[in-house]
Amino acid sequence: MMSGSTFGTLFRVTTWGESHGRAIGVVVDGCPAGIELSEMDVQRELDRRRPGQSTATTERHEADSVEILSGIFEGITTGTPISMLVWNRDARSSHYDSIRHTPRPGHADYTYHVKYGIRDHRGGGRASARETVGRVAAGAVARKLLSEFGVEIAGYVSELGGISASLPRWTSRGSIEREELLDIRERAESSPIRCPDAAASSRMLSLLDSVRSDGDSIGGVVEVIAIGVPPGLGEPVFDKLDADLAKALMSIGAVKAVEIGAGFESARLRGSEMNDPLFYENGRISFERNNAGGILGGISTGAPILCRMAVKPTPSIARSQRTVDMVSGESVDISVRGRHDPSIPPRIVPVAEAMVALVLADHILRQRSARLR
Amino acid sequence: MMSGSTFGTLFRVTTWGESHGRAIGVVVDGCPAGIELSEMDVQRELDRRRPGQSTATTERHEADSVEILSGIFEGITTGTPISMLVWNRDARSSHYDSIRHTPRPGHADYTYHVKYGIRDHRGGGRASARETVGRVAAGAVARKLLSEFGVEIAGYVSELGGISASLPRWTSRGSIEREELLDIRERAESSPIRCPDAAASSRMLSLLDSVRSDGDSIGGVVEVIAIGVPPGLGEPVFDKLDADLAKALMSIGAVKAVEIGAGFESARLRGSEMNDPLFYENGRISFERNNAGGILGGISTGAPILCRMAVKPTPSIARSQRTVDMVSGESVDISVRGRHDPSIPPRIVPVAEAMVALVLADHILRQRSARLR
Amino acid sequence: MMSGSTFGTLFRVTTWGESHGRAIGVVVDGCPAGIELSEMDVQRELDRRRPGQSTATTERHEADSVEILSGIFEGITTGTPISMLVWNRDARSSHYDSIRHTPRPGHADYTYHVKYGIRDHRGGGRASARETVGRVAAGAVARKLLSEFGVEIAGYVSELGGISASLPRWTSRGSIEREELLDIRERAESSPIRCPDAAASSRMLSLLDSVRSDGDSIGGVVEVIAIGVPPGLGEPVFDKLDADLAKALMSIGAVKAVEIGAGFESARLRGSEMNDPLFYENGRISFERNNAGGILGGISTGAPILCRMAVKPTPSIARSQRTVDMVSGESVDISVRGRHDPSIPPRIVPVAEAMVALVLADHILRQRSARLR
Amino acid sequence: MMSGSTFGTLFRVTTWGESHGRAIGVVVDGCPAGIELSEMDVQRELDRRRPGQSTATTERHEADSVEILSGIFEGITTGTPISMLVWNRDARSSHYDSIRHTPRPGHADYTYHVKYGIRDHRGGGRASARETVGRVAAGAVARKLLSEFGVEIAGYVSELGGISASLPRWTSRGSIEREELLDIRERAESSPIRCPDAAASSRMLSLLDSVRSDGDSIGGVVEVIAIGVPPGLGEPVFDKLDADLAKALMSIGAVKAVEIGAGFESARLRGSEMNDPLFYENGRISFERNNAGGILGGISTGAPILCRMAVKPTPSIARSQRTVDMVSGESVDISVRGRHDPSIPPRIVPVAEAMVALVLADHILRQRSARLR
Repeated sequence: MMSGSTFGTLFRVTTWGESHGRAIGVVVDGCPAGIELSEMDVQRELDRRRPGQSTATTERHEADSVEILSGIFEGITTGTPISMLVWNRDARSSHYDSIRHTPRPGHADYTYHVKYGIRDHRGGGRASARETVGRVAAGAVARKLLSEFGVEIAGYVSELGGISASLPRWTSRGSIEREELLDIRERAESSPIRCPDAAASSRMLSLLDSVRSDGDSIGGVVEVIAIGVPPGLGEPVFDKLDADLAKALMSIGAVKAVEIGAGFESARLRGSEMNDPLFYENGRISFERNNAGGILGGISTGAPILCRMAVKPTPSIARSQRTVDMVSGESVDISVRGRHDPSIPPRIVPVAEAMVALVLADHILRQRSARLR
Repeated sequence: MMSGSTFGTLFRVTTWGESHGRAIGVVVDGCPAGIELSEMDVQRELDRRRPGQSTATTERHEADSVEILSGIFEGITTGTPISMLVWNRDARSSHYDSIRHTPRPGHADYTYHVKYGIRDHRGGGRASARETVGRVAAGAVARKLLSEFGVEIAGYVSELGGISASLPRWTSRGSIEREELLDIRERAESSPIRCPDAAASSRMLSLLDSVRSDGDSIGGVVEVIAIGVPPGLGEPVFDKLDADLAKALMSIGAVKAVEIGAGFESARLRGSEMNDPLFYENGRISFERNNAGGILGGISTGAPILCRMAVKPTPSIARSQRTVDMVSGESVDISVRGRHDPSIPPRIVPVAEAMVALVLADHILRQRSARLR
Repeated sequence: MMSGSTFGTLFRVTTWGESHGRAIGVVVDGCPAGIELSEMDVQRELDRRRPGQSTATTERHEADSVEILSGIFEGITTGTPISMLVWNRDARSSHYDSIRHTPRPGHADYTYHVKYGIRDHRGGGRASARETVGRVAAGAVARKLLSEFGVEIAGYVSELGGISASLPRWTSRGSIEREELLDIRERAESSPIRCPDAAASSRMLSLLDSVRSDGDSIGGVVEVIAIGVPPGLGEPVFDKLDADLAKALMSIGAVKAVEIGAGFESARLRGSEMNDPLFYENGRISFERNNAGGILGGISTGAPILCRMAVKPTPSIARSQRTVDMVSGESVDISVRGRHDPSIPPRIVPVAEAMVALVLADHILRQRSARLR
Repeated sequence: MMSGSTFGTLFRVTTWGESHGRAIGVVVDGCPAGIELSEMDVQRELDRRRPGQSTATTERHEADSVEILSGIFEGITTGTPISMLVWNRDARSSHYDSIRHTPRPGHADYTYHVKYGIRDHRGGGRASARETVGRVAAGAVARKLLSEFGVEIAGYVSELGGISASLPRWTSRGSIEREELLDIRERAESSPIRCPDAAASSRMLSLLDSVRSDGDSIGGVVEVIAIGVPPGLGEPVFDKLDADLAKALMSIGAVKAVEIGAGFESARLRGSEMNDPLFYENGRISFERNNAGGILGGISTGAPILCRMAVKPTPSIARSQRTVDMVSGESVDISVRGRHDPSIPPRIVPVAEAMVALVLADHILRQRSARLR
């Protein structure tokens, strides 16, 4: 869209707020009228992204109680903008005075400075992970819409610091049963790492402890699956469903790569291995496998949407790093203090799910104008 | 944007046309006035994407002579829309009659059918690679704009069918000299595979021959590098530069994954390895390495932009594949006849460069409103 | 929209081309699949806007044969962009050499110069009335879509040079019968002034002759009525139906004012006179009168849409006018030579109808996402 | 834009909130970094639109204290979204129970119902004049930006209930001195009607009293003038400056007509009277008069921007009106109770000024990409 803080074309989301400002929030415009929506629906998702839930995540305690300020009447969406807000609390900005003029490596400090000439440096300001509060709140609304169409979305951590979870090979299957997906999700949510493989999860946790005591951090891989997505979503040739998903996921801080379906593996397959054969099943067209990740020519096929993304290690680390002092013009070494996740992927999961939900909700509405009737 | 055939916000590109329709073209709106532009500038890029140039690409012969119909006066852009058109010739649509009701695996045949209820099936219609004519023509205009700011873009094939080229490790360097990039580019352009490593290129060519005689196809990896990109480009939090690049590249048919900088490798690095330390060089901030791929917090750092994408094998293969007949409702086996590239990556290179150019041109204009003065 | 050459959000129209360039055209993106559309449908409307049809309009002879280059397959829209083009012929640009540096009063010559620093001065370039070819062609597509929903649009000249036609007082009626509207339209089309009142039309024609021999020009008022518009169209609070109509009509060159329903008269009515009482008729809500012009709160009521616009006199006049020579910096007197309409309103009629059609087509599609089902 | 609650392309404003919801607010995205902005700057404008200031306006007492929640750091805009909020107080929604199923004539009750199937009927919900709080707050930000470029905006009531103020004939002058405009403004602000002609103002006030005791209401005409507008603003051919102004002003509830410059009068002028001759003054191009209203070909000329709009009488009147009961399906008579302005134009003035400011701020930013340098 035109201004960087808005996402979507018909189901449109505008986030606002800085990490240590007064509040953070989002306006959802274009949500159809007639959907049941309560603050509880949104709070449930916000609680999933909230830090301080386990030893695997940062210790900052944020209540993050959402307030819905407009767009709902007697518990139902009215078609008018839904404004949601969370007040910022427990924001000890003095932690950040030292970084005002010394951009942290791996952070957006320098780039915001060079772009705008001014930045709210406290806690990363607008570039903070806290901005995802708005995304997750909006995603909760999108999920309510999607649930009316039978769409289910689940995400999890499939790899952390090089440790891979043992998981089904989704690209080899044309479909995924709802029960199986919900089971995967439940197992992920019960792990502090959000990894559905309990054995891998516990090894990841050990690694995390050792990395934390090193004053370092690690990255990982997050996967999101959506089932029940109707065929026909996506607007060629630029607003293809996979193109919009790639943008949505790459717009999450710390994500450095996105794959759809077989992803980079497709570069090594033959056409006869890559192409998913079609067949009829219960009178509907299905696919024998799903290397396409549920998208062909930028349009959904009806098979599961498979997304995978690389998450870089948390840039804020205690270990000493070289940077510059923009006032004195000298090189300095810094060590980033404060309460930081040693690894972001577990917290990326609800954000990535939210972004997938926003893309699907938008395209479900856009699809309505593809045909005369 | 709102309608799927338009890309960009200020430098806006709308492509139109089907593979076997009368013509194919593009309208570029929002190009600033005052840029020298001739049909030759555009033709040069179109010639690079044209099939039939080597044994590595399809045999279809297309002249693809561009005509600029508006927006230029006395050789200079006027700020008004630039309309460009290429007539379709040599379109033997009878080749395609057999696929009208039998969607080809790996193609958009089924998804266009289910979305629109009708499709121009000849040669893939709108989903054809031929649509990229418009992208490349628009990209040529974007490159003229970018060259005024000193931006240089080069792409090449780094991997084909599992064979990797030997190339510098770009993420380990904070900058790339123009001469080196132009040299890489020249070597790539002199290879039928567009691979700058001559030894790898010849092995790729052999593999291609054997794959072709198998009636099969292979995929590969394409990389695009942009240098001279001013710091400050990108509009957080959704229109981040990397998010827009991911969308741009994923919108190319056959691309299934996109990486920025260290990409998936970042998932396996420690924070202390991933973060790029800053230092002053000639009074400007530089980076000791470039795992970030030239982008932090969605905003360009001034370091080279590094993009990498996976290209799936050509879906059109001579080998027999299983699909359905949508009229009879029965399973059938098909073999896709016609003139098809056994591998797409060499032809993706100019398209990927064009898409990177479109994103950068758009963000150079958007950046102009970031500050009061 | 973002770039000035595009109109609409879902039914999107991008025009391109200059008066004396090689061609002029339009791309319609977002037209739903499944609509019958032929070049004849478009040609019919283009013929209505073509100059040289009567003594009341300019003598320039333009064939204006439209070519549809994409988006149609076997006579049906496919949901992909519809590109249409008309070649420019009979363009004697030497007529315009004298105005290169002397901006014509009332024209866009100076403002294009100051904005872009360069302009195609021949025949007004992009600011020429010829640009409306693209609008009318796109409007013809919109009308095909609208006719599927029973919408009928008719425009006419209600006033010229101060002479008013005798017409029904539309605001006093809650509805208009299709037969009556078609009759009005037929009478308008049979008049060289496009005025449905034959007596007024002939007086206007006499005035026109006398004004022409004075080397002067006159303005007038154009009205457009749309019936059969479903209630519920319009997107508060900014994309209200009346707001979008105002923009659409004011974007036509020479239009200086727009009224909806009672328009300026509403400033002089009491609330008890202005408000349109509601009642049930055949089980549907109707209105006793239509001061609202079919729109309340920016949303269509189902009553006829009533638009009225002021058209200024043709700025190109033979009489001497004062301007400046931008090269010498001196004041000069100019007389604009060439083939010019002494009055524009008759030719504005099909353009205004087209713009109303574009707005309604867009909002019919947008309305589809207002509700969950 | 795409969703109805957003206005602008680069300087983008999204309003949210219903009359009797918890709060009402706006997000301004795309405001450049580096502008001084305080809550006082915004409050000053909000106080101007607030009801309860004089006998001429409604008696509802609203504190309307704005809170800026983001986008400002140390008193300076940072280039990130500016979120502003006003809590709703004193909202006696029981007043409105009776209108739940009986749409008020002249109101949006019926159209919201038919569009969305549900509406927050309390106080007009989203269609309430209260929505303009967000517009005025955003307009205050736009004015700060514009003041950096020397733009001054002033509005006033020029006609009420048929009584016209005596004012200069602005179209006859090529320029307006700042002192004169500020004087006009001051006189308007000191009148309860916001009419700069004291004699007319007092006659309007008397009329208003008599209309109120009749249980009726009256409309009027509002004018807005902007001086210091740089030439070159406006994006042909659809986002012309006059087209965007027309949309902006027509999107204000109760506005039924918009004129630019000579407006409807142009329909009655000859070309030789309408065209504004050019001349050099202090080395700059000026105009001998300003029938164009400062805009030619949709681009600003540098002369004053002249806008005029018709405001209908307040639809809420005590007098009995005929409508329907949508539950029983019967005709009923209603009398609208509650605290209502008998005339809206005085309160439209700050809203119309805000809308003009939003359009100009947006186009000042858009203009930056018109040229290469």
